[in-house]
Amino acid sequence: MIKNGFSKLSKEQKTDWVLKKFFNSRSKDRELLSKYLIDENLQKIHDDFSENTISNFVSPFSIAPNFKIDKKTYTIPMVTEESSVVAAACNAAKFWSERGGFETEIVDFIKSGQVHFKYDGPKKKLFSFFKSKKKKILDSCSTLTKNMTMRGGGILDIKLMDKTSKIKNYYQLHAEFNTVDSMGANFINSCLEQLALKLKSEFTKSNLFINNYKIEIIMSILSNYTPKCLVRAKVKCKINDLKSKGIKDSKRFAEKFVEAVNIADADVNRAVTHNKGIMNGIDAVVIATGNDFRAVEASAHSYAARDGNYSSLTKAKIEKNHFKYWIEIPISIGTIGGITNLHPLVKWSLRLLNNPGAEKLMRIIAVSGLAQNFAAIKSLITTGIQQGHMKMHLTNILNTLDANENEKKTVIEYFKKNKVNYNKVEKIIKKLRKK
Amino acid sequence: MIKNGFSKLSKEQKTDWVLKKFFNSRSKDRELLSKYLIDENLQKIHDDFSENTISNFVSPFSIAPNFKIDKKTYTIPMVTEESSVVAAACNAAKFWSERGGFETEIVDFIKSGQVHFKYDGPKKKLFSFFKSKKKKILDSCSTLTKNMTMRGGGILDIKLMDKTSKIKNYYQLHAEFNTVDSMGANFINSCLEQLALKLKSEFTKSNLFINNYKIEIIMSILSNYTPKCLVRAKVKCKINDLKSKGIKDSKRFAEKFVEAVNIADADVNRAVTHNKGIMNGIDAVVIATGNDFRAVEASAHSYAARDGNYSSLTKAKIEKNHFKYWIEIPISIGTIGGITNLHPLVKWSLRLLNNPGAEKLMRIIAVSGLAQNFAAIKSLITTGIQQGHMKMHLTNILNTLDANENEKKTVIEYFKKNKVNYNKVEKIIKKLRKK
Repeated sequence: MIKNGFSKLSKEQKTDWVLKKFFNSRSKDRELLSKYLIDENLQKIHDDFSENTISNFVSPFSIAPNFKIDKKTYTIPMVTEESSVVAAACNAAKFWSERGGFETEIVDFIKSGQVHFKYDGPKKKLFSFFKSKKKKILDSCSTLTKNMTMRGGGILDIKLMDKTSKIKNYYQLHAEFNTVDSMGANFINSCLEQLALKLKSEFTKSNLFINNYKIEIIMSILSNYTPKCLVRAKVKCKINDLKSKGIKDSKRFAEKFVEAVNIADADVNRAVTHNKGIMNGIDAVVIATGNDFRAVEASAHSYAARDGNYSSLTKAKIEKNHFKYWIEIPISIGTIGGITNLHPLVKWSLRLLNNPGAEKLMRIIAVSGLAQNFAAIKSLITTGIQQGHMKMHLTNILNTLDANENEKKTVIEYFKKNKVNYNKVEKIIKKLRKK
Repeated sequence: MIKNGFSKLSKEQKTDWVLKKFFNSRSKDRELLSKYLIDENLQKIHDDFSENTISNFVSPFSIAPNFKIDKKTYTIPMVTEESSVVAAACNAAKFWSERGGFETEIVDFIKSGQVHFKYDGPKKKLFSFFKSKKKKILDSCSTLTKNMTMRGGGILDIKLMDKTSKIKNYYQLHAEFNTVDSMGANFINSCLEQLALKLKSEFTKSNLFINNYKIEIIMSILSNYTPKCLVRAKVKCKINDLKSKGIKDSKRFAEKFVEAVNIADADVNRAVTHNKGIMNGIDAVVIATGNDFRAVEASAHSYAARDGNYSSLTKAKIEKNHFKYWIEIPISIGTIGGITNLHPLVKWSLRLLNNPGAEKLMRIIAVSGLAQNFAAIKSLITTGIQQGHMKMHLTNILNTLDANENEKKTVIEYFKKNKVNYNKVEKIIKKLRKK
């Protein structure tokens, strides 16, 4: 056990402590941590993002060109450690840029949060109290909402929700927000805590409840369930136009594609993986633009489960000789606030995207998800997922086996015509080394 | 549009292209990218993880000490850009290390994958075909499974599933796997593609179907829905023992805590956020140990929705004067394969955890999730989430406003006794600068 105050130690002291305790103070373990440190001034910015930081964790920072979205062409920044995600994005982007590109629309742009509370009196009294005090409660946030209102957002509405059918005496103050270009978590939480304070003080003052009933605030917090912060992205083309290097029989391809999407809609085992693949594309852009991928993940998967059956976030159909394919997904992100204005590579990423607002970025991210799903299904229903994926993963296998340049060359050549698998790679290398 | 072959350009050529096209070739934009590059030999390893990499994206690499898990004490590596996540982990770890620590168990350790296919004949024929050929189909994977079997894993079973109630003629070959210490995605996918090949070739040869019926493989792919790869972590203590600096009335605290968890169980708006907070703790360790957080996210949220109502992954109750609180969550990760044996900081992280196998790492990750949830609920039902969070976020605000050391000192001092909010920080700094 460490005594109090570990967090107050300096970065060097924390590093010393962990190296002494777990790494026998070996200098090469210290060296490794320091090899990941960057330019001192930049490093200072990064150290402040979290607590107890001892180094930087690095992931590949990649770019995927050729995304034609609403008639403009983007190069998208992506951060992912999974091989083949960026390659898949590039392939799908190119494929669709030659077939009209992606079209997007913002379906809805509302976020919400709740004051969860208990009240032990008659419902009617509470609702009439709320009706008479609603404006006062809402107005108590005016200082907090001033800046946001100036930017065109703020609190859209507050409602009293009866949740007593679920838990005895349980009610919600449900608030809806427009947080414009910020993700808005801090703004929403600050407003909710203020709403809760005012709700309670007005309740206490009110002569409706005196001495008879009480209210207790359990908690006030934004919701990451954001079904009303929704974006749609779609592609379509004539079935004939699907023809390409990997697609010979475009009619059968389109039919099989629709079948694959329908299976993801009907079967949870497939749906979860299908959506996971979408998130490969989504999160890579979410992270590169400094947003919170846990929030986006939670929102997407719970939306996929919204009607009680967890199902696909993309849909596809054949209509009048056209192939139509789209995604509808909630994405709550921001382009100001959080680390978006602080992380130098995030600022670089946002500039690469021509400094989009939140809505524009939602569109781009949704497209990245649809593109990733398209590439995955295309592989799955034609060559199988492993051919492409293992080709990308081959480098990882070679590095794991410490292959030298010559060995790499021989192995890569061999697998141009053969299916990659770990054992086979190992075998070839062993053979080469015996020579 | 870029012509073919962008992916084949060198890293320098790609960087040149993107700088020219989007950044007017300005040298400071190039410099920024290069400032994030590391030692050449290390850099080479990282460049190979993904495609089209032009630099490294860095996130804070932190440590959280004092995690007492199954009677051993761990310092946990965490990677997160969200301020207050690591601080929350440390607080919860310390709190529970003084109250017996966390206990864990592996509930189940099975992964699955499916060959999705269509068949247009009588069900009975297909099932009797499968029964007679099951062993042969299974055995066709023996070369692929050899290494895994030696390590104690392999294909556990394959089953034929009738899914025709969902989609006409739709069946699955459902396979279950033990992938031991690897996450197993490549292994499972390779086996499934082989199973599909053999299923089809045996079908074609079989005299049961000749010329009458046909089978079509739609796709073969692992499932990220892993309800059988399940870990449980729990804490308990006497209600009296909950007393601490932040908890004066331990009985009321315990009751309110249980209420907060029950609300997350009953209400989707809260459930999604509640679980999102859990994933803050989970993903930070998943990333630090080189695992695929999209897989873990997909699995966790779909599990939360498994009975049709999206609900809480943690539960709490009061029983015989004891506070009991636990998490049950599917976590499919590995400690070998993928980038775990390649990323130097991942290897460092795994050594910090004393090189755990997959099951041990599942336990540690589940504890990190439970700890994070505890810290969040504790804040929510006592001081509110914003007090602690905004204190951590204050540094970000100060950096956004380019505050100097003196300004920072003054502002931090002021907010020791006051609620942090952006406008107020801005006001104070403006005032200081006018002086």
